[in-house]
Amino acid sequence: MSTTYSPPTQTGIVEQGDPADDPRAFRRALGQFATGVTVISTSDGTQHVGMAVNSFAAVSLDPPLISWSIRNESRNRDTFVSNGHFAVSVLADDQVDISALFGRPHEGQFEHVAWTAGIHGDRLLDQAIAHFECTLEATHEGGDHVILVGRVKRCTRLDGAPLLFSQGQYGVAEAHPQVELTSAAPSVKSSDAGEAAPLFTSLLKATEQHMSSLFDEYRSRLDINIVGSRIVNLLDTAPASAEELSERALLGEAAVEDTLGEFKSRGWVSESADKVFALTEAGRSVRADLLRSAQEFTSSRLKGIDPSDLEAARRVLIRLLTS
Amino acid sequence: MSTTYSPPTQTGIVEQGDPADDPRAFRRALGQFATGVTVISTSDGTQHVGMAVNSFAAVSLDPPLISWSIRNESRNRDTFVSNGHFAVSVLADDQVDISALFGRPHEGQFEHVAWTAGIHGDRLLDQAIAHFECTLEATHEGGDHVILVGRVKRCTRLDGAPLLFSQGQYGVAEAHPQVELTSAAPSVKSSDAGEAAPLFTSLLKATEQHMSSLFDEYRSRLDINIVGSRIVNLLDTAPASAEELSERALLGEAAVEDTLGEFKSRGWVSESADKVFALTEAGRSVRADLLRSAQEFTSSRLKGIDPSDLEAARRVLIRLLTS
Repeated sequence: MSTTYSPPTQTGIVEQGDPADDPRAFRRALGQFATGVTVISTSDGTQHVGMAVNSFAAVSLDPPLISWSIRNESRNRDTFVSNGHFAVSVLADDQVDISALFGRPHEGQFEHVAWTAGIHGDRLLDQAIAHFECTLEATHEGGDHVILVGRVKRCTRLDGAPLLFSQGQYGVAEAHPQVELTSAAPSVKSSDAGEAAPLFTSLLKATEQHMSSLFDEYRSRLDINIVGSRIVNLLDTAPASAEELSERALLGEAAVEDTLGEFKSRGWVSESADKVFALTEAGRSVRADLLRSAQEFTSSRLKGIDPSDLEAARRVLIRLLTS
Repeated sequence: MSTTYSPPTQTGIVEQGDPADDPRAFRRALGQFATGVTVISTSDGTQHVGMAVNSFAAVSLDPPLISWSIRNESRNRDTFVSNGHFAVSVLADDQVDISALFGRPHEGQFEHVAWTAGIHGDRLLDQAIAHFECTLEATHEGGDHVILVGRVKRCTRLDGAPLLFSQGQYGVAEAHPQVELTSAAPSVKSSDAGEAAPLFTSLLKATEQHMSSLFDEYRSRLDINIVGSRIVNLLDTAPASAEELSERALLGEAAVEDTLGEFKSRGWVSESADKVFALTEAGRSVRADLLRSAQEFTSSRLKGIDPSDLEAARRVLIRLLTS
């Protein structure tokens, strides 16, 4: 397959090929499908295991079935299969730390989180936005994973918005811009002072989404994606390990490792014997280019706006952000 | 299970129970897990079928496997199983219309979209952000669905951001606010004019996300969720069918139908013989309450801000939104 950072062709294809030849490229393509993040746990009364999973999927309404898959090499695989029951917690947008905690093998993970034992004794995370308590209905071989189908015995919907994992990074869901633009439209045209004030928040949202989408378009012409630019920015402040980068940038570890590998082959980063990565001279120059292009983008959008209006707008935004 | 709109308890539980007793509540709980949206297609050279699917999941890297499931009652079920191959297109954030088009049975769907035939003859949607061209590796019974496992023969990653489906509505992914707040922090404190300008876009994003999260918190205290409030707002402009509401509000049909059923039982909407829904007097009063609470929220946040600063901020935002 072609390299990760090849500039897009006219048809928008970044890379294409047989995934058997390049598992990392396959993983990047899979990352285009956005998902929520779950923690799935099982307990035998003594041993309590849990892991972050994003292969969760709905299967059937009647009977109520869901599925997910676990690597055959995972040390928890046999425990999940032999316990015969498990509990799924769908994480909320403020549970990034919990996703990271359960994203790697770690003793005593449950000591760091609030949980409640469910009907099968499996641990449910408090503050999650949904719980599915399941018995194991079936297992199916699935290559290097096994697919577990669970029959949901009790389900719970809780308040909150979902944590997302998409294109290698953590995120949150926003209402679709088509909806927001529609709802903000009156405030754009309205000169009715009575109605103007309540719609400021809609205007703020519509403007932010419009700018984000323009900037995404602008960035897509650069030879680096958002994961790459975030890593370059972080390494510019201090050298770091892949794990530190993943935690500080809210990026998936697979995406960080792929990107660091790519950056090494480009000569943008160096790796020390203890696996700490640092920007090279070439990497610092990439960072300077990125900063300059972000500045150029913003300047071009702000061009022609009265500087005193801009200062006032900045005061309003800072006030809203900090109050 | 308890009704949909019961006010949250102290623990945040909205509803809980055995999903076998209430499939709709189960579906709402499943909706808490955010997903991308795919269109999965198969062709036998003569007949070309495609359908919107969000049960897509990664299964295995080596061999490269993915899975999804289809209702046993779907008229396309046997076609997918007997053709023995299919193609997955992961939709981009500007493909809501395509999701709706493939969301219901419809002759000649492919006449309305740009597509390219893949290596097995299955149709791939242009402008999608990933393609997975698969042979059918295995099928597994899964209650009222069958799980199809595909072996990926060719995969393609394309430019673009994903369309999301989450909590009954279409959306887009935003970088996690923790990241944005960090990157905006310098502009909040900075008085360096040279560096201030480029960061206006970061400040805009951080402020919008902060306000959204405050408003979500505020709204969670009301006896109506975002899907419900959007439906009330649309019905306030004109009566509409469930299908029209789903299209205009970018909501999933299941979520719209559930909500309309709930609203009918509350006396907020009436349904005509030809299945057109309209707000009742009680429904209009709910709409007025919603508007008032949004106004109260915005006023409380804007309180104490210099009115001339606010007017200037509004001018800047409108300029950015419309240029």
